[in-house]
Amino acid sequence: MTRYVAVVGPGDAGPDLVALAEEVGARLARAGAVVLTGGLGGVMAAASRGAAEAGGLTVGLLPGADRAEANPHVRVAVPTGLGQGRNVLLVRACDVLICVGGSWGTLSEVALARRLGRPVVALAGWTVLDPTGRPVEDGILRASTAAQAVDLALRAIDR
Amino acid sequence: MTRYVAVVGPGDAGPDLVALAEEVGARLARAGAVVLTGGLGGVMAAASRGAAEAGGLTVGLLPGADRAEANPHVRVAVPTGLGQGRNVLLVRACDVLICVGGSWGTLSEVALARRLGRPVVALAGWTVLDPTGRPVEDGILRASTAAQAVDLALRAIDR
Amino acid sequence: MTRYVAVVGPGDAGPDLVALAEEVGARLARAGAVVLTGGLGGVMAAASRGAAEAGGLTVGLLPGADRAEANPHVRVAVPTGLGQGRNVLLVRACDVLICVGGSWGTLSEVALARRLGRPVVALAGWTVLDPTGRPVEDGILRASTAAQAVDLALRAIDR
Amino acid sequence: MTRYVAVVGPGDAGPDLVALAEEVGARLARAGAVVLTGGLGGVMAAASRGAAEAGGLTVGLLPGADRAEANPHVRVAVPTGLGQGRNVLLVRACDVLICVGGSWGTLSEVALARRLGRPVVALAGWTVLDPTGRPVEDGILRASTAAQAVDLALRAIDR
Repeated sequence: MTRYVAVVGPGDAGPDLVALAEEVGARLARAGAVVLTGGLGGVMAAASRGAAEAGGLTVGLLPGADRAEANPHVRVAVPTGLGQGRNVLLVRACDVLICVGGSWGTLSEVALARRLGRPVVALAGWTVLDPTGRPVEDGILRASTAAQAVDLALRAIDR
Repeated sequence: MTRYVAVVGPGDAGPDLVALAEEVGARLARAGAVVLTGGLGGVMAAASRGAAEAGGLTVGLLPGADRAEANPHVRVAVPTGLGQGRNVLLVRACDVLICVGGSWGTLSEVALARRLGRPVVALAGWTVLDPTGRPVEDGILRASTAAQAVDLALRAIDR
Repeated sequence: MTRYVAVVGPGDAGPDLVALAEEVGARLARAGAVVLTGGLGGVMAAASRGAAEAGGLTVGLLPGADRAEANPHVRVAVPTGLGQGRNVLLVRACDVLICVGGSWGTLSEVALARRLGRPVVALAGWTVLDPTGRPVEDGILRASTAAQAVDLALRAIDR
Repeated sequence: MTRYVAVVGPGDAGPDLVALAEEVGARLARAGAVVLTGGLGGVMAAASRGAAEAGGLTVGLLPGADRAEANPHVRVAVPTGLGQGRNVLLVRACDVLICVGGSWGTLSEVALARRLGRPVVALAGWTVLDPTGRPVEDGILRASTAAQAVDLALRAIDR
């Protein structure tokens, strides 16, 4: 059974997040997973590049209506024309979601993933507190390295 | 110019949130705003009821494809058939979003609102921390009463 | 039970179609139906104007993300940001669809309506032939006046 | 530049359409095109099977939210959860659309393709007449064999 893993994170990312995302993509590809992203830059491009260079299959679900927006490491580009509505598609299409870093768009994907019951692995992401100040952590798996993130993600699917 | 205000929050809400949402809806209606919700129960039904009883116009953007899912206080029911994709529509359709309480679905709406540049007024909602532990608050206005929430929301539009 | 009727047709329409659409809108409003359109010009604006001037409730599901695109006769404007994907929403949201004139966009709405089981009333629209040259007419009701179109539409719902 | 070709047609198709669709898929794959379909049965499964057996890359944009709905010849399955809204995505994602046979769903895809400016190649499909009884043929290329359909489609992209 093919496993589909979404890698999400800021389109504008510093070198640390880029390195993490690239390693996450490479490890997923070596494990035979299809790597889904939002198809643009930053974390999305890095994860796609890592996966593509490791021989993996990369899919980009783009917000715009023009396929040319995709980063060059995306093998299958789907220009959805849904704007941020593509975030919902990305979450539906995956078995598990790995978030690398934080942004409002990224948080929307994490929240939608939990709403739809997908497990989430968080690398360097944002934390959510409920009104009593307690972290909301159901279904959120924290990782501190790319290797651990991929390991947790694949185990969350196979469970 | 008609103002459109989205009121979002858990579909399964206790009496405190219900009372807050109902008062928010009533105050928005008295101010002449169209009240947008996800059209289902809990906070959505309470805000719609408050608005409808105050003579306001209520719109429900439903996740399912069946109009009969709408709560009875929704005047215009749009069964989108988009599932949680309707959250994106709700955010696009509003000038400002008031969140009453927290849930993953609610958080997805708050995050999408910020991603799309809509101001957010938070009543009893969740808090988001960045990796350094600092609250992410740009564009989030905290309120502690329904009156204050509506006041902040309408002023955020008019600005 | 509120009845929702979609009126669809070209955004660029001559005076004959405009007059037909305006009368359809007015008659629907007098019958108490909510009039749904794509919210832009031509047939959409004419049907909305007819309905609004007769005191009806008009809803526009816009393709773009900006509410200001709506024609001034739309009471509730929903900027979907879905492009032609809003055609699917329009069809889902209605009980019956009246098409006034033909265009590719209009035909997509007629076809989606039949695909989703909504009855279609056609005024001056296009005709579809199967490979043997026979008209495909299941669920398509032909009308030659606005009065007849509205009558057929409302009876198709009540049945 | 990778070419993306959508093959659309009834989910319930007789042996003639199945044979045509399978040959279309195989010829597209041999030409190096990505074959996009709605991912289900009938013409969709046949085109995917033809392409996959010829070593091509097949993508299925599913109406439902469950990847397991995809036919087994789809390599990348995207469960959109958009219902017939996935037809819009299929059209946006392709450079050209080949329709094999007719149905209301298929016609909606043809109409959306023309609305969005994609060329359409029609094999055994429906015909559309305007109110004066004239066929509406702008951007519709008629083919009578699978070889001709693929040839016309690829030339329409390269132009």
